[in-house]
Amino acid sequence: MNKSAHYRASRSERADTGVAVGRAREGAGAGMTASLGSAEAPRHAGRDRHSLTEMMHAPRLAIEAVMPSVDDGRFAAKAIVGETVRVTAVILCDGHDTLAARVCWRPVPPGQEAAAGWHTAPMTLVQPAGNDLWEGFITPQTLGRYEFVIEAWRDVFGTWRNELTKKHAAGVPIALELEEGRRLVFDALDRLGNGNGQPLQDGTGEWHEPPALIQLRQVLAQLDHEPATTAERVDTLLSPETQAAMQQAEAFEHLTRSDCHYPLDVDRERAAFASWYELFPRSQTDDARRHGTFADVHARLPMIRDMGFDVLYFPPIHPIGHTHRKGRNNTLTPAPDDPGSPYAIGSEAGGHDAIHPELGGFEEFRALVRAAHEHDLEIALDFAIQCSPDHPWLAEHPGWFAWRPDGTIRYAENPPKKYEDIVNVDFYAEDARPALWEALRDVVQLWVDEGVKIFRVDNPHTKPFPFWEWLIADIRSRDPQVLFFAEAFTRPAIMARLGKVGFSMSYTYFTWRNTKAELTEYFTRLNESPLRECYRPNFFVNTPDINPVFLQSSGRPGFLIRAALATMGSGLWGMYSGFELCEAAPIPGREEYLDAEKYEIRPRDYFAPGNINGEIAQLNWIRRDNPALQRHTGITFLEIDNERILYFARGTPEQGNVVLVAISLDPHAAQEGHFELPLWWFGLADDAELHGEDLMTGHRWSWYGKWQWTRLTPEMPFGIWRVRAPDQGWRGVA
Amino acid sequence: MNKSAHYRASRSERADTGVAVGRAREGAGAGMTASLGSAEAPRHAGRDRHSLTEMMHAPRLAIEAVMPSVDDGRFAAKAIVGETVRVTAVILCDGHDTLAARVCWRPVPPGQEAAAGWHTAPMTLVQPAGNDLWEGFITPQTLGRYEFVIEAWRDVFGTWRNELTKKHAAGVPIALELEEGRRLVFDALDRLGNGNGQPLQDGTGEWHEPPALIQLRQVLAQLDHEPATTAERVDTLLSPETQAAMQQAEAFEHLTRSDCHYPLDVDRERAAFASWYELFPRSQTDDARRHGTFADVHARLPMIRDMGFDVLYFPPIHPIGHTHRKGRNNTLTPAPDDPGSPYAIGSEAGGHDAIHPELGGFEEFRALVRAAHEHDLEIALDFAIQCSPDHPWLAEHPGWFAWRPDGTIRYAENPPKKYEDIVNVDFYAEDARPALWEALRDVVQLWVDEGVKIFRVDNPHTKPFPFWEWLIADIRSRDPQVLFFAEAFTRPAIMARLGKVGFSMSYTYFTWRNTKAELTEYFTRLNESPLRECYRPNFFVNTPDINPVFLQSSGRPGFLIRAALATMGSGLWGMYSGFELCEAAPIPGREEYLDAEKYEIRPRDYFAPGNINGEIAQLNWIRRDNPALQRHTGITFLEIDNERILYFARGTPEQGNVVLVAISLDPHAAQEGHFELPLWWFGLADDAELHGEDLMTGHRWSWYGKWQWTRLTPEMPFGIWRVRAPDQGWRGVA
Repeated sequence: MNKSAHYRASRSERADTGVAVGRAREGAGAGMTASLGSAEAPRHAGRDRHSLTEMMHAPRLAIEAVMPSVDDGRFAAKAIVGETVRVTAVILCDGHDTLAARVCWRPVPPGQEAAAGWHTAPMTLVQPAGNDLWEGFITPQTLGRYEFVIEAWRDVFGTWRNELTKKHAAGVPIALELEEGRRLVFDALDRLGNGNGQPLQDGTGEWHEPPALIQLRQVLAQLDHEPATTAERVDTLLSPETQAAMQQAEAFEHLTRSDCHYPLDVDRERAAFASWYELFPRSQTDDARRHGTFADVHARLPMIRDMGFDVLYFPPIHPIGHTHRKGRNNTLTPAPDDPGSPYAIGSEAGGHDAIHPELGGFEEFRALVRAAHEHDLEIALDFAIQCSPDHPWLAEHPGWFAWRPDGTIRYAENPPKKYEDIVNVDFYAEDARPALWEALRDVVQLWVDEGVKIFRVDNPHTKPFPFWEWLIADIRSRDPQVLFFAEAFTRPAIMARLGKVGFSMSYTYFTWRNTKAELTEYFTRLNESPLRECYRPNFFVNTPDINPVFLQSSGRPGFLIRAALATMGSGLWGMYSGFELCEAAPIPGREEYLDAEKYEIRPRDYFAPGNINGEIAQLNWIRRDNPALQRHTGITFLEIDNERILYFARGTPEQGNVVLVAISLDPHAAQEGHFELPLWWFGLADDAELHGEDLMTGHRWSWYGKWQWTRLTPEMPFGIWRVRAPDQGWRGVA
Repeated sequence: MNKSAHYRASRSERADTGVAVGRAREGAGAGMTASLGSAEAPRHAGRDRHSLTEMMHAPRLAIEAVMPSVDDGRFAAKAIVGETVRVTAVILCDGHDTLAARVCWRPVPPGQEAAAGWHTAPMTLVQPAGNDLWEGFITPQTLGRYEFVIEAWRDVFGTWRNELTKKHAAGVPIALELEEGRRLVFDALDRLGNGNGQPLQDGTGEWHEPPALIQLRQVLAQLDHEPATTAERVDTLLSPETQAAMQQAEAFEHLTRSDCHYPLDVDRERAAFASWYELFPRSQTDDARRHGTFADVHARLPMIRDMGFDVLYFPPIHPIGHTHRKGRNNTLTPAPDDPGSPYAIGSEAGGHDAIHPELGGFEEFRALVRAAHEHDLEIALDFAIQCSPDHPWLAEHPGWFAWRPDGTIRYAENPPKKYEDIVNVDFYAEDARPALWEALRDVVQLWVDEGVKIFRVDNPHTKPFPFWEWLIADIRSRDPQVLFFAEAFTRPAIMARLGKVGFSMSYTYFTWRNTKAELTEYFTRLNESPLRECYRPNFFVNTPDINPVFLQSSGRPGFLIRAALATMGSGLWGMYSGFELCEAAPIPGREEYLDAEKYEIRPRDYFAPGNINGEIAQLNWIRRDNPALQRHTGITFLEIDNERILYFARGTPEQGNVVLVAISLDPHAAQEGHFELPLWWFGLADDAELHGEDLMTGHRWSWYGKWQWTRLTPEMPFGIWRVRAPDQGWRGVA
């Protein structure tokens, strides 16, 4: 009895918490639970229990399926500064009246809840009208967060115009309609006169009546002028001037607004169009026994620039730990002079805010950033949130880590990979909130302040989504130029989620897509919602961790194939140094490089025979010269009668720039086939002439007719042809 | 100067309104506008501007793509009482830990904001796991509104179990893991001891410790028992009993809830499975000069029941107006004895709450409702919100109508159709809110009180969506049996919207889908999201307004074809009387009946030669006997090498009931073809035996092999075959 009394007491003590009581009794299985407790109010709870009063004043129109949007407005859709965004929505109303709609949009500067004014852009009904789809176009001109909202209303004067026009054409009596039109004008004039028709001040400081008011007064006068004929009255009421004036006095009848302010994240151009080159600064040496330095990197800049790259990315440049340091080929038994993995961050020389002493100091780093800039190269750093056991944080902030019963910390794993030389922080440890979160933000801010505006983030999917959502927004609220690049090779929904929470671009599955069917399916999916709005793919052809199986046996032709696929497939592509030399020696049976650079210093002869430097330079030049190739969107797969050739077209929205790309997927043998020209894009008949230009060679010719033939060889396994109608200029623009 | 001073004054007077000022100046065109004014706060405004404090406590897991849902929870998804609903969501977390999830669901009785307790159902990860899709199953057992929410958390003990299991199997040291497991048990025990392990009262009123608490105490004792071997400790910690007890003490680490409580509308079975028969009571007479009455309808009930119908639907039964009454064939010059269109509602005899005197009175109506019920028939009425000019409301409530400058009211139109004999109410007139809305609700409630639980609603798309959302919820809050059937033949998004705001079922485009491609595309679309969740199609083969072109020249075989398509294509189908007699005489070149019954009394000989009463009865019987045919969902199109034969399979979720349907679309000639049997559904090889049963004739046989052949003739243009594996019973259930 004592015991049960104890339990009864503790039960009633807990009664108010609800959740824990009910949950614990049911565990994770099926059953009843008392309540969901004190969670935040759910978004739509009771939203469909409307009182009569509410519903009488509820929006009469419906605005559905607003795009671009991510998870119905929960996250920002991605946009590029200066690039027009097509905003669409399905807009509905009961009845048959004419509707009107517009997009209202504005920048939302950080820290300002209410931005100044709204821009507006009219929306129009997309044909065929039966889909009730409306579109409008907006062009953000500054970086950072924007928002838009859609407004729609019943267009009373437009409805009346339509009816009058039809009846007048049909010759039926319209006296009543004319009187109704007159009353609409009268009401509009009343709205203007009541303050909506403010006078305008001209250059001399004089005030003038707004033209709409003058116009509508004239309309009324003309209608009331007795000798006016019906035809004259019709002309007056249907004139474009009257319509414009009536729009100035719009009544916005049954004005309805989209449920949500849809956010847009406006990035700079480089978030969508960039060519990345990755190198280990320590390997920029001619002797594996001499550690390369920032100063050594200077000598590489002209060559990297000349190959057409614009982002130069370094793996971590911070001090490397000693404890459990990895030896060559990822062994656990390093030789004394093995440099260790740069991902084992932190030693007595410092942590994420320090530079590995053998690379140089902050002065040398700044000089390199400047020099890169002078070569039109932007430096991207690696943000890898992990610590060598020697990282200062372990001693300074033991509460930021999860210690095991024996006083150790679990080493990091990304199954099946094991990282014995690093440990992870615990974002939700008691001491870590907010100190760890702030410390990590401060690390990023430090490098931003040093002029680094792009961060490649290592394994972001093993750190909490809310952390990234906060960190990225926080950094970008001060500098919206900063871009984050997610290195997450994991399940598709998680990779998309990282794009949603703020990563500007992402690694992809491209490296593992080899067949025509795989590539077609993957490129298509990246072009469609929901990925289209939240996920920018950066096609890396290799990484220090990924030595693709295809390249291990393809020889030089395979490197050309993958370079062409990456450069032509997305506005964003990248390579890790050695690719241009067709390096492919693997650990046998593995997708990893033999003698991986992560664990040793690897000098290279960057002009070694067989290199593809020239081809890469030409591919990058072609990209810079053709807007159609500067995005991953806008791809159309076309017919070719060969399963080993991928053939597609890239076009800018108005087809001003159209590039056809045929890539053999066979590095070992020639492939040939008949392929179709998209003559219909140019409004041309199937037997028409089309001008073609080989962008690798500069050769120009005329094609006649829809079906053509090509042959691709291992020596030049792809064709890149800019096409134009005969009445366009050679650049494809009329 | 005086004038501009005036304008300046009025301008500053208006400065605080913002909207009107900014809007009016820009009109509906592009430009800047000052602000969006005082609209309700947008749902997500600022939602992605999170402070560090907020984000440190934000949900760590992500729950995305919750289904079933309509517009992300804005509207209720449709369900049927007693039918299991599959709830799915994509659930994500950073890292590699094991997750757990469940659906919490409950009825939401009207007027009760917080219902009592939540039911819970566990969710499991759907294979392949790479899609991160979880599923759970719930089965609402009562009518009306439900809601569900998804909860997910990190399964700490499960994560630990997985790791221990792998390491133990690999033979690596696990002492540390065992100690970690011990601590998890200790913490769980602590949670139970702190009130989550309330004692349970048994039948005799005695209190007992919960089994989980006893179990976990035993686990600790066994672990701490010194001679215990590692193997014994592993067995203890990994035992199913320990797991069950740990779930009872679940810590719900990083518990995350879906953004929204997703509503479900639970309807009775008849909302998804019903066969409708439509007749004009006034035509139930043997003499066009004698007006049929409710009493006359009694004689038809046995025949309608025997044909397998269960809903008997009447066009409006209210008094018919005299002003602008329509004559035969929709003329504007009626003869003195023309009865007029029943859609011209209202006369000196009353309005929507009255009965047309020539049909009978309320007593006769009640008797008919009772008699129908005794014949297993449910009566559905027409709810047509429009008024003859003689409707009492025009005089009593002139403020409910929009009057034109000449004192008239615009007559109704549904372009291109004109209804000169009726006028529409104005839902947003000043006097109409709320009086008109309430009056209309009261009309429906009156007929609900008379025992009518199904309303076919005439042209709902010309009345405001918020009105329907309120009216349907209001009526169903008192009687969730009541169903509304939307007669909207308009654009697809509007038809879907009506389903969203509460209509239980809808007319469709079925009548205009004739070719194999059209039917396949349409049936498929109805089976998919977003229509699947919000739109139940009722396939009417004809209506008093629609005399389908196909039937005008098809003869009897065409009627059999359309009956088979409708009955086999959806759980809901209907016909308007005359169809069973293959009536098809059109107004030449129009989709309308000659001598349309809407404008005259049309006696019929329901046993006239050439009728298809028997075939309709058999089709309806087949539907009642096969659950696979009682929904519009669950359709699979299969291969047949003839473009004039539509061939599909219908199956219940576990394939317990599988029906194959082959329908010739050619009423004029025999069609034949080879078709495939879906042997793979039964796990059978391509050369296996499958039992077939012709549900029209009862004939049974065995098919051998995947490809079979059939021939369909105009006399019997379809085949309906129930199939089963040889080890199942003939009813298709093992």
